[in-house]
Amino acid sequence: MSQTAPRNIYILNGPNLNLLGQRQPEIYGYDTLGDVQSSCHEIAATFGLDCTLLQSNHEGQLIDWIHEAREAAVGIIINPAAYTHTSVAIFDALNAFEGPVLEVHISNVHKREAFRHHSYVSLRADGVIAGFGIEGYGLAMRRMGSLLCG
Amino acid sequence: MSQTAPRNIYILNGPNLNLLGQRQPEIYGYDTLGDVQSSCHEIAATFGLDCTLLQSNHEGQLIDWIHEAREAAVGIIINPAAYTHTSVAIFDALNAFEGPVLEVHISNVHKREAFRHHSYVSLRADGVIAGFGIEGYGLAMRRMGSLLCG
Amino acid sequence: MSQTAPRNIYILNGPNLNLLGQRQPEIYGYDTLGDVQSSCHEIAATFGLDCTLLQSNHEGQLIDWIHEAREAAVGIIINPAAYTHTSVAIFDALNAFEGPVLEVHISNVHKREAFRHHSYVSLRADGVIAGFGIEGYGLAMRRMGSLLCG
Amino acid sequence: MSQTAPRNIYILNGPNLNLLGQRQPEIYGYDTLGDVQSSCHEIAATFGLDCTLLQSNHEGQLIDWIHEAREAAVGIIINPAAYTHTSVAIFDALNAFEGPVLEVHISNVHKREAFRHHSYVSLRADGVIAGFGIEGYGLAMRRMGSLLCG
Amino acid sequence: MSQTAPRNIYILNGPNLNLLGQRQPEIYGYDTLGDVQSSCHEIAATFGLDCTLLQSNHEGQLIDWIHEAREAAVGIIINPAAYTHTSVAIFDALNAFEGPVLEVHISNVHKREAFRHHSYVSLRADGVIAGFGIEGYGLAMRRMGSLLCG
Amino acid sequence: MSQTAPRNIYILNGPNLNLLGQRQPEIYGYDTLGDVQSSCHEIAATFGLDCTLLQSNHEGQLIDWIHEAREAAVGIIINPAAYTHTSVAIFDALNAFEGPVLEVHISNVHKREAFRHHSYVSLRADGVIAGFGIEGYGLAMRRMGSLLCG
Amino acid sequence: MSQTAPRNIYILNGPNLNLLGQRQPEIYGYDTLGDVQSSCHEIAATFGLDCTLLQSNHEGQLIDWIHEAREAAVGIIINPAAYTHTSVAIFDALNAFEGPVLEVHISNVHKREAFRHHSYVSLRADGVIAGFGIEGYGLAMRRMGSLLCG
Amino acid sequence: MSQTAPRNIYILNGPNLNLLGQRQPEIYGYDTLGDVQSSCHEIAATFGLDCTLLQSNHEGQLIDWIHEAREAAVGIIINPAAYTHTSVAIFDALNAFEGPVLEVHISNVHKREAFRHHSYVSLRADGVIAGFGIEGYGLAMRRMGSLLCG
Amino acid sequence: MSQTAPRNIYILNGPNLNLLGQRQPEIYGYDTLGDVQSSCHEIAATFGLDCTLLQSNHEGQLIDWIHEAREAAVGIIINPAAYTHTSVAIFDALNAFEGPVLEVHISNVHKREAFRHHSYVSLRADGVIAGFGIEGYGLAMRRMGSLLCG
Amino acid sequence: MSQTAPRNIYILNGPNLNLLGQRQPEIYGYDTLGDVQSSCHEIAATFGLDCTLLQSNHEGQLIDWIHEAREAAVGIIINPAAYTHTSVAIFDALNAFEGPVLEVHISNVHKREAFRHHSYVSLRADGVIAGFGIEGYGLAMRRMGSLLCG
Amino acid sequence: MSQTAPRNIYILNGPNLNLLGQRQPEIYGYDTLGDVQSSCHEIAATFGLDCTLLQSNHEGQLIDWIHEAREAAVGIIINPAAYTHTSVAIFDALNAFEGPVLEVHISNVHKREAFRHHSYVSLRADGVIAGFGIEGYGLAMRRMGSLLCG
Amino acid sequence: MSQTAPRNIYILNGPNLNLLGQRQPEIYGYDTLGDVQSSCHEIAATFGLDCTLLQSNHEGQLIDWIHEAREAAVGIIINPAAYTHTSVAIFDALNAFEGPVLEVHISNVHKREAFRHHSYVSLRADGVIAGFGIEGYGLAMRRMGSLLCG
Repeated sequence: MSQTAPRNIYILNGPNLNLLGQRQPEIYGYDTLGDVQSSCHEIAATFGLDCTLLQSNHEGQLIDWIHEAREAAVGIIINPAAYTHTSVAIFDALNAFEGPVLEVHISNVHKREAFRHHSYVSLRADGVIAGFGIEGYGLAMRRMGSLLCG
Repeated sequence: MSQTAPRNIYILNGPNLNLLGQRQPEIYGYDTLGDVQSSCHEIAATFGLDCTLLQSNHEGQLIDWIHEAREAAVGIIINPAAYTHTSVAIFDALNAFEGPVLEVHISNVHKREAFRHHSYVSLRADGVIAGFGIEGYGLAMRRMGSLLCG
Repeated sequence: MSQTAPRNIYILNGPNLNLLGQRQPEIYGYDTLGDVQSSCHEIAATFGLDCTLLQSNHEGQLIDWIHEAREAAVGIIINPAAYTHTSVAIFDALNAFEGPVLEVHISNVHKREAFRHHSYVSLRADGVIAGFGIEGYGLAMRRMGSLLCG
Repeated sequence: MSQTAPRNIYILNGPNLNLLGQRQPEIYGYDTLGDVQSSCHEIAATFGLDCTLLQSNHEGQLIDWIHEAREAAVGIIINPAAYTHTSVAIFDALNAFEGPVLEVHISNVHKREAFRHHSYVSLRADGVIAGFGIEGYGLAMRRMGSLLCG
Repeated sequence: MSQTAPRNIYILNGPNLNLLGQRQPEIYGYDTLGDVQSSCHEIAATFGLDCTLLQSNHEGQLIDWIHEAREAAVGIIINPAAYTHTSVAIFDALNAFEGPVLEVHISNVHKREAFRHHSYVSLRADGVIAGFGIEGYGLAMRRMGSLLCG
Repeated sequence: MSQTAPRNIYILNGPNLNLLGQRQPEIYGYDTLGDVQSSCHEIAATFGLDCTLLQSNHEGQLIDWIHEAREAAVGIIINPAAYTHTSVAIFDALNAFEGPVLEVHISNVHKREAFRHHSYVSLRADGVIAGFGIEGYGLAMRRMGSLLCG
Repeated sequence: MSQTAPRNIYILNGPNLNLLGQRQPEIYGYDTLGDVQSSCHEIAATFGLDCTLLQSNHEGQLIDWIHEAREAAVGIIINPAAYTHTSVAIFDALNAFEGPVLEVHISNVHKREAFRHHSYVSLRADGVIAGFGIEGYGLAMRRMGSLLCG
Repeated sequence: MSQTAPRNIYILNGPNLNLLGQRQPEIYGYDTLGDVQSSCHEIAATFGLDCTLLQSNHEGQLIDWIHEAREAAVGIIINPAAYTHTSVAIFDALNAFEGPVLEVHISNVHKREAFRHHSYVSLRADGVIAGFGIEGYGLAMRRMGSLLCG
Repeated sequence: MSQTAPRNIYILNGPNLNLLGQRQPEIYGYDTLGDVQSSCHEIAATFGLDCTLLQSNHEGQLIDWIHEAREAAVGIIINPAAYTHTSVAIFDALNAFEGPVLEVHISNVHKREAFRHHSYVSLRADGVIAGFGIEGYGLAMRRMGSLLCG
Repeated sequence: MSQTAPRNIYILNGPNLNLLGQRQPEIYGYDTLGDVQSSCHEIAATFGLDCTLLQSNHEGQLIDWIHEAREAAVGIIINPAAYTHTSVAIFDALNAFEGPVLEVHISNVHKREAFRHHSYVSLRADGVIAGFGIEGYGLAMRRMGSLLCG
Repeated sequence: MSQTAPRNIYILNGPNLNLLGQRQPEIYGYDTLGDVQSSCHEIAATFGLDCTLLQSNHEGQLIDWIHEAREAAVGIIINPAAYTHTSVAIFDALNAFEGPVLEVHISNVHKREAFRHHSYVSLRADGVIAGFGIEGYGLAMRRMGSLLCG
Repeated sequence: MSQTAPRNIYILNGPNLNLLGQRQPEIYGYDTLGDVQSSCHEIAATFGLDCTLLQSNHEGQLIDWIHEAREAAVGIIINPAAYTHTSVAIFDALNAFEGPVLEVHISNVHKREAFRHHSYVSLRADGVIAGFGIEGYGLAMRRMGSLLCG
């Protein structure tokens, strides 16, 4: 990656996360992706980094963004949601990205249905954080800062 | 859901169902999704309900429509076709919908390949009907009527 | 089957269904097999069909009735209850019956214990309906009407 | 259950247990079901309880008796023998019984063939005792006494 | 077994075999259980043996007959049909019979559905014959003759 | 074992059982291991036996005690708790003990998580009792009395 | 096959069967392959058939003989011994043979190690006989006679 | 298909193949999909065929193109990439296409992770070629020529 | 827990973690548990919390400390190392602890051997963090602060 | 390999392929191995290569030829037929060969029985081609030419 | 075995071991089977034993030699190489040999592919040695000496 | 490791091996760990090595000793007994030891229960020897000598 590449972090969010803050707030709380964006931005700034938060319900769109990140970002924080467990295609896309990749799950997926226990993305991710609520995004950004600027 | 919400039923159809009536008519018959729409509309009307039939080959589009149904519909009849067996994301989307969900398969999937025996959608659906041909849609609409208006 | 065969439908019910209406009414409701019989009879009549509802806790008795149906009935609606998952013998008996076979489950078995996800009867049934409550019997009878008289 | 219900315990015995005392006495000993009945009766009496011992090789008969017990008994001690491993129907029947259920196996089934390691009945039973010989029935009756009268 | 025990062979037949000769004759042929009885009787006689052919669709009845055979027969030829694959109880009953047991299947079960590839009865049987048509019964009787009289 | 060996029974308890009476009393009740000791002692005395109750969270300590029991005890009652499912080493140690071994579980482990359904200890135990609450210890002691003094 | 083809039956024997009569006679008896040949020859003659018994420890040799049988024989009786469970190649070779194929095992393989429960050859054989001792060859020859001359 | 249908071959490419030539060139080489298009075009021309190469990261788009091919093409060469292993929907779409289908993988998927060893597309494809690098496309086109024009 | 309980966090470390900083520094780095302690202490202080770091190679010792934490700590951060995958006993112990539990793994266990993909501790933990190096401890402490003081 | 090594390609064929052209010509066509040899020779010549086609039903013979190829050939094209799925020994032998290895199957093995879906040889082969009929050999030879002379 | 039987040990070697010393010397070293023979001979002599080393790539040949050993040898040291994992036939042959059998693998097969973790031969062997290089043969010979002459 | 490190070999023994010579002497013989120590010492001396034999029933103690060996020993011979099959922690500890590791089992574990067929330690060990009785320790010491001094 060239020296002049923008010091940007992509925060990618998979299917149904557009409903964050509206769906089952007793579980997921009232914070929205907008709030995630704000708090991540603040932490990123302490490392001299910027961030771009994106969400799609379309597997193909997520892949397109990961490809785009090859030029536009130095790291990826991804919450693949349901595609975690089914998408070999996202796994392959992430393999074509050279910077650090951190995987975030809001809930502790290991306590849920058996089909949520396997993650294709974890086979590529440098780190995985699950069950830390939306705070997990911010902690992942801190780690991203350490990895890129530490 | 507010009292004033439209009394509409979404009839969602997954991949390849746009070919209904053209593909293997000896199995699936000559009726098209348009015919399904007509007969469902007629039954819905007997309960004072309306219905909207949609089809897409894109998993993400189906998810978008399910989200839309949170505002626009009081029930969902879904034939997820091939995504029945592979889409955790549609399952998650349906979990964010509060009204009744009925799952329809035109053929008896239990007699076909082993990978068609598991349905993520059945883990959320209130009822499942398979192998009743396109008549299954109408019978599901009758049940929808009973559940919402009975 | 000869032209003069009685236009009768057998409605066979497996183990524990004699308790319908008494056992866990919050789940199964207060309707009894007698009520199922009445409503099925009414629907059957609209097609010029008759129906006979039978129940047994004995696997062998159910097989005997299926054999009897070879002469006495033109279609079978069966709720095999627990034998759904364990009886190869009922599956074999149904294979010796030539008319349409429809399988009914009151609850959505796919949401329950894993051992309820496999059905030997579905390997033979023309259609399967689950989770539609006792209304499922009536909808199956409608389908039977279409298949035999449509 | 009404106050005036008989304080009776059903002791149900599954297939082949009619041969107890005759079959492989080096393993099962020389005591018969009659002896089991006597010693259970004696222990039951110390708690002011009565007991009825029944045996059948027919799965359906066992289910019929479990249904009967809904009126006629306050607790069930059951040795389902071979049906332990194959009968979802007996499991369902026991779920319709509201009093305590204790499961007895004369031999230690966990030391025998792999297909004897799974018990449908254990999914419902309050307690399970295996490998205590026919003394297991008496110990189960003591527990029944504690649960109902303790 | 006492010297004076009757030199009789029980030929037990499981569920749906009462339809032999009527069901799918292109597969099973036009011979009935009566024909099986006749030809077995003839072969038995050449060894000075007699035979009793019985059929039931009831698992419990088959177990009762196996118990009865402990007194009334010196050998058992059994075609357990569908119970082959599901009945631990018949397996246990046969374990309480001391004479030779031969298992017969008319069709070659190994070529059929996977659930027909396992036999509980084979774990007890001295010999197994499958796919020899109804001639398999006669060949089993010849073997029985050799074992008992050879 | 020599004639003069002490007529003592070891009652061994595995990990977390030191919390008995404090942890989840709504499930496990308010009785402690001290209460178990008292009631077992009383029953043992009726058979002229004595007993020693021990508890450790250390797998190795439990093995050491089983070795010690080779000299110091004539029988072992063991509640291996979580080590039930994971310890081949305790299984091996028990195989080096020659007297009777009875396995006790306070709750019905067969109703809990799948990983609790397998017991290495059951492969060695003469009898197993589960789901009888702490009363299970006393019933095991009665059985021990029968086995050693009956 | 032309009318003038020799009416010969190949009796093929797989690995280690050359030791028949010498190895573990308490199990396999004292008869040798020579004795098998004699008794089969006698039975074949009653049907106007001839037979050729061959044995090899080499999988490839057995395949060569099966190919040869396409010209030289009208039926195959095969005891594939250990290759039963491992040889897809013999299965494929038998698929290229058009006459009847009968599979013989001297012992009841279903009672032995789990890896002996699957047979590639049974997927092709018309009939299978196991556990009838060397008498199984003769009974298979009788069946061959019925099939070819009956 | 009518005589006048365009003699066109669709060459469909799944997710991440847009990166061909840029991603891991030490493995995949420096050729791009444009180069694949050129060389396939040249080979197609020798058979009087034309070809259209398409790529998408969206499963739904690939399905749309397969439907389009029902009118617009006489054969399909498809490299489904990651969707090979997860897409029942593409499998179903291909089943609605009547011409020949050839499946291409650039690398030898059988040497990679276990989840790449299963292909839904192979259940429909007439032929499969893997590990021949991008030359595999050209060889598939040659085969296509033979099948359609040979 | 009493109001006066010390606001302490236990940081428990399983087998082989005493070698941190010495073993495979190219993977695990040169930081030791002492450094982990220091950085966690600093973060804890910002929330008004204290922390105690402990390490043992003995499963029983870890259980003892978890029990001790019931009185001495308000939260547990645990890196169970190899016991993650094998210790039901630690899982049970953690179930007896009422405060928040966070699970830390230095490396991304999901990328390693299959036997490291299952964690008993995750079934109890509120959150799991893996592959964040020793920085994971600090991030877990931040989360602990939010949960207890946020 | 020395410069002076013969530029020869071994084309090895496994069991039953000697029947090519005679067995099931509706599937495999009427071409024989001789025809394969001719067409491969022609293609090889365009690259300045020679080829030697061999066939055996003996696994050991195939291994011997692979060893011989270490001296006598610069590449191997192998159709291992049934040994594809069962022969670790051929896999090991190919691992001792240093040139390119291409695997050919005439039919699409992925559409056939499950036991044909796994190939030991694919774990070593550089490329695999299946379902291209005997044309697959020629296409493999083209690839061999590219690899060795391209 | 008679007193006068030759005191010879057969050292049997399976497929590809003829390449020992030539294939991957960095793993297997430069010693050949000839060197193995020499060193084993020397050790054998210290016990008054002789030895015969044989190698074949043919499963059938190895079986023939094992049969021969019944007369010609008092013990077998066998490195079955790839046939370890696939040959039931060699297992059966060894079961017909009465003397001690020791199994040798040059590399530690447990560290290699999963299909090398199961050995049919180990089910018969008295001892197994793996990963000791070619020194494993000599150590096996020492053990053979102890067993036969110790 | 420095030149001046002590030339010592640790011989570590897992649970229940303290009973060697007392437990089941018909299987394990009458030799004790003391005898093992003596014979190993003698062999070690021939290579100028020393040895320290240790035994514990505590997994944690064995790990502590392996850590200690990093300083105190140049090689480890380990018989992990039951921990072979369950201890990831010992596997991890051995991975932190840099010298050679040899695994010894007195009996042939491959002939015993299925749960004894997997060894975590074998994934790290350089060599494995099983079923050679206590002589296996001495042979491992010989190999250790070759590896370190050869």
